[in-house]
Amino acid sequence: MSKNFLPFDETLKALENSIKTEIGIENIFIGDALGRFLAIDIVAQENNPTHETSSMDGYAIRFSDQQLGSLTISDFIPAGTETHGVVNKGECVKTFTGTLMSEGSDTLIPIENVEVKEGKIHITSAVSKGFAVRPIGENYKAGEVLIKKGTKIGFAEIGVMAEVSMVQVEVFMKPRVAILSTGNEILDFGEPKTSFAQIRSSNHVTVEAILRQLGCETMRFKLIRDDRDLIEQQLRQALMWSDIVITTGGGSVGDFDYLQSILTDMKIENIIDGSYMKPGRHIRVVKTGHKYIYALPGFPYSASVCTFLFIAPLLRKLRAQTFALPTIKAFMGELYKKRSKFVEFTACNLRFDEGQLVVDLQGKKEGSSAILNNLLDNPVLLRVEKDVQKIEKGEMVDVVLLDL
Amino acid sequence: MSKNFLPFDETLKALENSIKTEIGIENIFIGDALGRFLAIDIVAQENNPTHETSSMDGYAIRFSDQQLGSLTISDFIPAGTETHGVVNKGECVKTFTGTLMSEGSDTLIPIENVEVKEGKIHITSAVSKGFAVRPIGENYKAGEVLIKKGTKIGFAEIGVMAEVSMVQVEVFMKPRVAILSTGNEILDFGEPKTSFAQIRSSNHVTVEAILRQLGCETMRFKLIRDDRDLIEQQLRQALMWSDIVITTGGGSVGDFDYLQSILTDMKIENIIDGSYMKPGRHIRVVKTGHKYIYALPGFPYSASVCTFLFIAPLLRKLRAQTFALPTIKAFMGELYKKRSKFVEFTACNLRFDEGQLVVDLQGKKEGSSAILNNLLDNPVLLRVEKDVQKIEKGEMVDVVLLDL
Repeated sequence: MSKNFLPFDETLKALENSIKTEIGIENIFIGDALGRFLAIDIVAQENNPTHETSSMDGYAIRFSDQQLGSLTISDFIPAGTETHGVVNKGECVKTFTGTLMSEGSDTLIPIENVEVKEGKIHITSAVSKGFAVRPIGENYKAGEVLIKKGTKIGFAEIGVMAEVSMVQVEVFMKPRVAILSTGNEILDFGEPKTSFAQIRSSNHVTVEAILRQLGCETMRFKLIRDDRDLIEQQLRQALMWSDIVITTGGGSVGDFDYLQSILTDMKIENIIDGSYMKPGRHIRVVKTGHKYIYALPGFPYSASVCTFLFIAPLLRKLRAQTFALPTIKAFMGELYKKRSKFVEFTACNLRFDEGQLVVDLQGKKEGSSAILNNLLDNPVLLRVEKDVQKIEKGEMVDVVLLDL
Repeated sequence: MSKNFLPFDETLKALENSIKTEIGIENIFIGDALGRFLAIDIVAQENNPTHETSSMDGYAIRFSDQQLGSLTISDFIPAGTETHGVVNKGECVKTFTGTLMSEGSDTLIPIENVEVKEGKIHITSAVSKGFAVRPIGENYKAGEVLIKKGTKIGFAEIGVMAEVSMVQVEVFMKPRVAILSTGNEILDFGEPKTSFAQIRSSNHVTVEAILRQLGCETMRFKLIRDDRDLIEQQLRQALMWSDIVITTGGGSVGDFDYLQSILTDMKIENIIDGSYMKPGRHIRVVKTGHKYIYALPGFPYSASVCTFLFIAPLLRKLRAQTFALPTIKAFMGELYKKRSKFVEFTACNLRFDEGQLVVDLQGKKEGSSAILNNLLDNPVLLRVEKDVQKIEKGEMVDVVLLDL
C-alpha cells in the first residue's frame, strides 16, 4: 500500500482544487435560520427609513422657530399613523418615537426640553437643527448589499432580514456527514467493560460534535470492530446517505488497518494520501462523485485537529466562504520546542493581554496526540513550520482559529 | 412615574445582587449536551491511561536490548487484548497503537525502524528510552478536575465526558424567556402593509435570536398594539410560563408608553429603573419571585445592546459563570468622538492586526440607535466612559465581547 505524502499546504491545495460546486440551496423561515449560511446576497429593496421619522418623543418644529421660545401645539400624531401633521410657522406637532415627521418641520424638540402650558410648548433647552430626526435612508439605501452570500446567520442578520420584510430565506443545505469509528480496543457508550485493555470510544462523538458545531447534520454509526467486510459494508451504506463520510481509526498502515486497502480497492479518486504534518499525517481523502471520504486517525485529539484542518475548509467552500485556514498573528508567550520535522499544529491558549494577542500552553499537557483534554477551554492551533525547532518567547507566530 | 436613574455600573451591581440562586439542573444524554452548561465539575475517576500503552504500531522491547541489533519476535498482541505479552531479554512483542505494553518492556520501536526477517526484527534506526509508550495517567490522574461547573459544553467537553465513561450529564436547565413586543407602528411577519408609516418589526426576532444563541428556550408572543389591558394580560401570561419576560418598546415615558405604569401598578421589586448609559437608558428591570421582567427599548439596535449588557450577565450567573461583562483592552484604530454625557456602548469591529487587538468603526453608520445593521459582522461593543468626549487613534480602550 503506497502512500503519496505531500507537503501540508499542497495537500490542502489539492483538496481545494477538488471542490467543484457549492452545496445545494433550500428555503427556510427566517425563525429557523440561526446558524445557517446565506446562499444569496441580501439587498435592500427600498430606503430605510423610507420617510423622515422621529427618534424620540417630543415636538416637531421648524428649527427657525426655536428662537420664538414658545409654539402652539397644532396636532398630535402617534407612531404608525399614516398622515403627516403639518407644522406652520409658530406651531409644533406632538410626535412620538417612530412617528413620521410633520410637513414643514425639520427638527424634533424632546419632551424633556419643554414645558407644556395652555396648548403651548415653552422651550427650556434648545437643540441643534435636525435634532432627533432620522433622515431617509439612514439605515441603508435601496440597492445596498446588506448581507453577503456565505455569511453565517446570527441575531443581527435575522433582525435585518425581518426589517426588509423577508419571511423566508435561501440557505445552503446542511452537509450530511456520516461518522464511522473502527477499532477492537474501543467500547461504545453503555457497553460493559470486560477487560482493562479496553478504552471508551470518544473520537466518534467528538468528531460528531465538531461537525454539528460547524453546521452539519450528522449520522453516527455503531462502532465497528476491525473486520474488513463489515467496515466495507458500513462504508458503502454511509456513502449512500451522506455527502461526507468520516472514518476514524484503521487509517494507518498496521496489520489491522483494513480501511486503506478498502479505499484503494474502491478505485476512487485520491485527493490526499498522506500529508507531511502532525498530528494526522496518515490522513487520506478520496472523492467519488461529489462525495468525500475522510480516513482520520484514531486518537480523538488527532481526529479533532484533522477535522478542523481538512474538513472545515471543505465545508466553508461548499457554503461560499473562504477555504483558507483562518490564521492570525500572535506573540508567543513562552519558549516553545518542537521535536518533529513536520509542519505541526498544537492546541494552545490565545489570550487577550492588554491589547496584544498572546499564545501560551498553560494547562496543556505535553505528550502523545492521544490527549483530548488539551482541546478543552476553546483553544487555537499554533502552527509551527517544518524547519522550526524552537520559538522564543515574544516571537510572532501563526495561529489557526478553530472556526466554530 | 418617577424613574430612579443610577450610574451604569451601579445598575449592573443591583442586578447582580438581586440574583439569589442558580437555575435548576436537569440530566441529559451527552449526545444532546452540545451548547449546554455544566452543572457539576467533571472529575476523573481513574488514571487515563490506566496502564502503559503503545502510541504507535511497532515492537515492545527492553531499551537495554536495543544495542543487540536484532531481537526475536515472541508474541503478537493486538490492541484491546487483555493479556500482556512478556518481553524477555533478547525478545520483542509485536504491538499496535493502543495495545498494552508487554511485561518487561519499556520502549516501543516503530515498524518503520526495523526490518523483519525469519522471526526476528533488525533495528535499522534506534529510538530513545520510553519511546512511543504512553505512561499511566498521561492524559489525567484520578481525582483531577477535568472540566469545571459552568463550562459551556463544546466538542472537546463531549469527548472528554465520553472518555471517562459518562453517558448522561447534569446541565443547567435552559432559561425560558418570553418576548413581547409592543407598538402601533410595527408590522409582524406576513401582515400586509397598509400605510407607509408602518415599519416591519425586527426587535422581537432579533432579541429572540440573541437569547437562543445564549442558550435559552424562547417564546415569542404576537405583537401587541399600544393597548394597556392587552399588554398587561399578555405580560401576566408570559410571566406564568417563563423565567424571564422581555418586553420591547413602550418602555420610555411618552403618552403611549403603558408598560411603565403597568409595572409600577404590579408593585413588584424594582431592580433597575433607568441607567445612565446609552443606548437604552430607560431600561427597567423588576423581579417577582425568581422571575425577571425586562422592559427594553423599542429600537432593535438598542434592544440588542441592552440584551447583551443586562440580560447576558444574568444568564451567566444563573449558570454558574462570571456575571461581569467580558471586557478586554484594545487599541483604538481611528479618532472617535462621543456626543452624549453617558457611559456609551458602540458597535464596532475588533480586528486581529499583526498580534494587536484593534478597534475601528469601518462600515458602521453614524446615526441614531435605530441602525440594527451596525450589529452585523460579529461586532464588539466599545465602552466609552461618561466624561470622555474624544478618543485618539492608538489609545487603549475597553471593549465588551458579545458573549455568544
